[in-house]
Amino acid sequence: MSTFQTIALVGKYQSHEVAAALGELVAILREHRRTVLIEASTAASLGNLGARVASYEEIGTQADLAVVAGGDGTMLNTARRLAEYSVPMVGVNQGRLGFMTDIGRDGVREAMAAILAGDFSREERLLLSAMVVRDGEVVFRSEALNDVVVNKGELGRMIEMEVKIDGELIHVLRADGLIISTPTGSTAYALSANGPILHPSVAGIAIVPLCPHALSNRPITVSDASRLEIGLIPPHDARIHFDGQTRFDARPGDSVQLQRSPNSVILVHPPGYSYFAMLRQKLHWSSAPRS
Amino acid sequence: MSTFQTIALVGKYQSHEVAAALGELVAILREHRRTVLIEASTAASLGNLGARVASYEEIGTQADLAVVAGGDGTMLNTARRLAEYSVPMVGVNQGRLGFMTDIGRDGVREAMAAILAGDFSREERLLLSAMVVRDGEVVFRSEALNDVVVNKGELGRMIEMEVKIDGELIHVLRADGLIISTPTGSTAYALSANGPILHPSVAGIAIVPLCPHALSNRPITVSDASRLEIGLIPPHDARIHFDGQTRFDARPGDSVQLQRSPNSVILVHPPGYSYFAMLRQKLHWSSAPRS
Amino acid sequence: MSTFQTIALVGKYQSHEVAAALGELVAILREHRRTVLIEASTAASLGNLGARVASYEEIGTQADLAVVAGGDGTMLNTARRLAEYSVPMVGVNQGRLGFMTDIGRDGVREAMAAILAGDFSREERLLLSAMVVRDGEVVFRSEALNDVVVNKGELGRMIEMEVKIDGELIHVLRADGLIISTPTGSTAYALSANGPILHPSVAGIAIVPLCPHALSNRPITVSDASRLEIGLIPPHDARIHFDGQTRFDARPGDSVQLQRSPNSVILVHPPGYSYFAMLRQKLHWSSAPRS
Amino acid sequence: MSTFQTIALVGKYQSHEVAAALGELVAILREHRRTVLIEASTAASLGNLGARVASYEEIGTQADLAVVAGGDGTMLNTARRLAEYSVPMVGVNQGRLGFMTDIGRDGVREAMAAILAGDFSREERLLLSAMVVRDGEVVFRSEALNDVVVNKGELGRMIEMEVKIDGELIHVLRADGLIISTPTGSTAYALSANGPILHPSVAGIAIVPLCPHALSNRPITVSDASRLEIGLIPPHDARIHFDGQTRFDARPGDSVQLQRSPNSVILVHPPGYSYFAMLRQKLHWSSAPRS
Repeated sequence: MSTFQTIALVGKYQSHEVAAALGELVAILREHRRTVLIEASTAASLGNLGARVASYEEIGTQADLAVVAGGDGTMLNTARRLAEYSVPMVGVNQGRLGFMTDIGRDGVREAMAAILAGDFSREERLLLSAMVVRDGEVVFRSEALNDVVVNKGELGRMIEMEVKIDGELIHVLRADGLIISTPTGSTAYALSANGPILHPSVAGIAIVPLCPHALSNRPITVSDASRLEIGLIPPHDARIHFDGQTRFDARPGDSVQLQRSPNSVILVHPPGYSYFAMLRQKLHWSSAPRS
Repeated sequence: MSTFQTIALVGKYQSHEVAAALGELVAILREHRRTVLIEASTAASLGNLGARVASYEEIGTQADLAVVAGGDGTMLNTARRLAEYSVPMVGVNQGRLGFMTDIGRDGVREAMAAILAGDFSREERLLLSAMVVRDGEVVFRSEALNDVVVNKGELGRMIEMEVKIDGELIHVLRADGLIISTPTGSTAYALSANGPILHPSVAGIAIVPLCPHALSNRPITVSDASRLEIGLIPPHDARIHFDGQTRFDARPGDSVQLQRSPNSVILVHPPGYSYFAMLRQKLHWSSAPRS
Repeated sequence: MSTFQTIALVGKYQSHEVAAALGELVAILREHRRTVLIEASTAASLGNLGARVASYEEIGTQADLAVVAGGDGTMLNTARRLAEYSVPMVGVNQGRLGFMTDIGRDGVREAMAAILAGDFSREERLLLSAMVVRDGEVVFRSEALNDVVVNKGELGRMIEMEVKIDGELIHVLRADGLIISTPTGSTAYALSANGPILHPSVAGIAIVPLCPHALSNRPITVSDASRLEIGLIPPHDARIHFDGQTRFDARPGDSVQLQRSPNSVILVHPPGYSYFAMLRQKLHWSSAPRS
Repeated sequence: MSTFQTIALVGKYQSHEVAAALGELVAILREHRRTVLIEASTAASLGNLGARVASYEEIGTQADLAVVAGGDGTMLNTARRLAEYSVPMVGVNQGRLGFMTDIGRDGVREAMAAILAGDFSREERLLLSAMVVRDGEVVFRSEALNDVVVNKGELGRMIEMEVKIDGELIHVLRADGLIISTPTGSTAYALSANGPILHPSVAGIAIVPLCPHALSNRPITVSDASRLEIGLIPPHDARIHFDGQTRFDARPGDSVQLQRSPNSVILVHPPGYSYFAMLRQKLHWSSAPRS
């Protein structure tokens, strides 16, 4: 018997397809006699579908599982909102499968039945905890499941950053920016910037420069116990992006400080899930010798 | 008081410079009243320098520390020879500092004094344990501190390999070859093939394709708990290189199986050692903003 | 009325599928009342199919067009054999379309009818002319339509080469090897080594290092009027590959000298041919915005 | 006897070092009895130094040579201002030599004497001519000696572009942006984005994606006779940068159209100039085998 008794639904904002999927999920969960919560802004956008409306805080304290309908973007947003509560999450996708949304439209009923019956795998994904410090004060804070990107600012020109790890100056980087990526984020934006793919079980953080001026600046992966600090050397400013969803405009002299968050995201996968099968499909790797 | 009482010397084969350095090391260690062993093939090539000649096995069971004079190549060779004995190693370089040889010619006396006085840092580096399997039989075995490289064979053409991780087929790779690298090896050959730099504290193994046919084949880093298997799809053969020093010619159908070795290499660093300072110097990263 | 009166057929060695295709081509060409020659080794392998058997020299002097059935490999081989005669070539593919074989199995009749009716485009592709010089003597010569690859030799280790352009020493390269590629070859092996894609109309030659030791060694494209010289610094030897089909083992001190050949390959394309459409298909580029 | 009788001086804005260098140049040119013009904004910033003040238009129509004191940025700006007049340019650098500024502080007197005596080489560099088209109207025009960069806009997210060459849709690119680079610009920003180095004698234009979403999107080099068109697919906007110095904010639906300009830049080099020697120095390539 599964421990998932109270189940929260979160859906992509203003998507009719997602509304239909959520309706189906409510029906399936009712058949299995689960208590169903629906996240408040999801309900405001798509209707409450007969479920009890709940805030992220209520979901965090009451739900045993969050089912997220949408794409990777909805997963990222929900993960940050629920980070401090350790509610396990599972993703349902309406279109093509995502890097984190394992259950396709046609497999919802079967996959949910299996998960509710206790037939699933759990996976822990590390989160980054980041803050922007100005004159000794924290002026912004966010967690990130994919990445924190320090990007060139308003002027659109190369910026100069001091990169420190555990208090030691590593180098002064001149580049378009710098991506700090989790293993989860290593298959997202960081991959476009030639960053390394890190399996989710690797306890590492990737530091990936964007268009570095020096040809010898390569991505480095450090331990997830590392403290990172990116200092904006005046007169350079930067835009800081968190999971590509939240943005903070940093000023010259500001410092971005990052480390692994004490919180983690718990992903629940249906039976048969394989990280490498997902990767092979998303990156179009061949699984068979050429004929 | 340091625990290093019996100290073994290993030197690069047939180098006059190294002979001089070993002579100086014998004198320094005598001043500190240490028992000095000299590795047998080193002694055969450079003279015994007044020290007791010892096999790797004797060094492994009797020495508290091995001082290696030469370059990174001598360190790699010594590491494989001493792997099973857990004797800590420190590297002394005659020319430019290496990735693993921290002590330069001019700093030998001071650095050894500090290390013998107990002022040093210890670092554990993971080793790969690899074997080549043919028709169910192990036909070759080696450990590697840097990397195991599966390279195209006699014909010099692209080869096809089945890459499995923990028993799961990841993909069929068509490439010039494949590098399996430790964090230590990530700044060596793998870096030339666009592999990721992994800090030694990252418990990961990098899988780096050489000139892959498919443009979407990127390096992947997996946990150091992973079991890897590279199968040579007939009619493809391959040459397998271990730390670029030992070679085995594999036949079509052979399988290379790798995992983290139960042994590790223990590096001893003199005071002031910094991995990133070494990296910055070797890769010519700037430590100061441009003027 | 097309000028293609005498047409030679060349086919992939020992392929039953190709034999069938050649048979169909003979029939089509007879219907159009063309004189048909069949290349001698093709005839020896697949039968003469009722056509007159001819050597490459006879084809070179008598044929107005060569129709090549097979894949890119067969095109490369035929191109080198016919290089000095300027016979236009068109490729017919049995399996997936190739980079140079534009006509698929199903479109043979229609495409040949169009070409024979004068409805086609001509494209000139540059060839490399290469020779290996030892102690002032030429010890090997070959042309290449794709590339000349200087690859590490028997020992399988990094080699050192002096790279000269128009007599000027550019740099001393330490690498696994070096690819000298035409625009035609820029989508073949050179692309796997991160070389640049050069449109066939670019009069350039790409110089692409294989796993260079220095991270700042990047591919360079020079004018097709350049004379290149790759000197093997002793004790390094190398294997030289021409279009991946012919190999010469060079010794330490040997020099590989390359320049654009006075001959060119003339490709004939059926109506509707597009280089970029071919590239988009082969590299899986999307032609439509994501939904 | 050189044909350079009237010589214009252009200097970096508000640099005291450049003012001193210009003063020395005026003296040298007077000794050689040349007529000296000084560009108006240079004079406004640094004083007229006793030379006749002239607009870019006057320089364009009256000067036989422009001597530019500053760095590559000053050369780029001057090149665009003088593009339509074909006045040859030579660069004098106060600090480290640049990619285009060949004469160092200490060699000014000797180099200028040689050039005025007719001992120099001429090199033609292609310029890009770009315009932004909105609803059929040209809303911005600029030339560029290095590059035109279509970069993600205000939102800072990946943009979608239709890339057309000679009217044919090549692909729909999803990326941070796209660099269109001349051979001159191939060693500037494009190189940081893994673009190809093109020797100035290669008549090509490099198309280099910035962090493309699809891993198979690689840089392409096309003939300098190509017409390029980059269409911003709504709702994507972009910032267009010309030589990193001029910027235009484009709207969704705008199209950037580029081709080789009818104008070229003529660079004058002092005796002994070598493009590859410059490249070797700037990219830190070794010119000697490792000891």
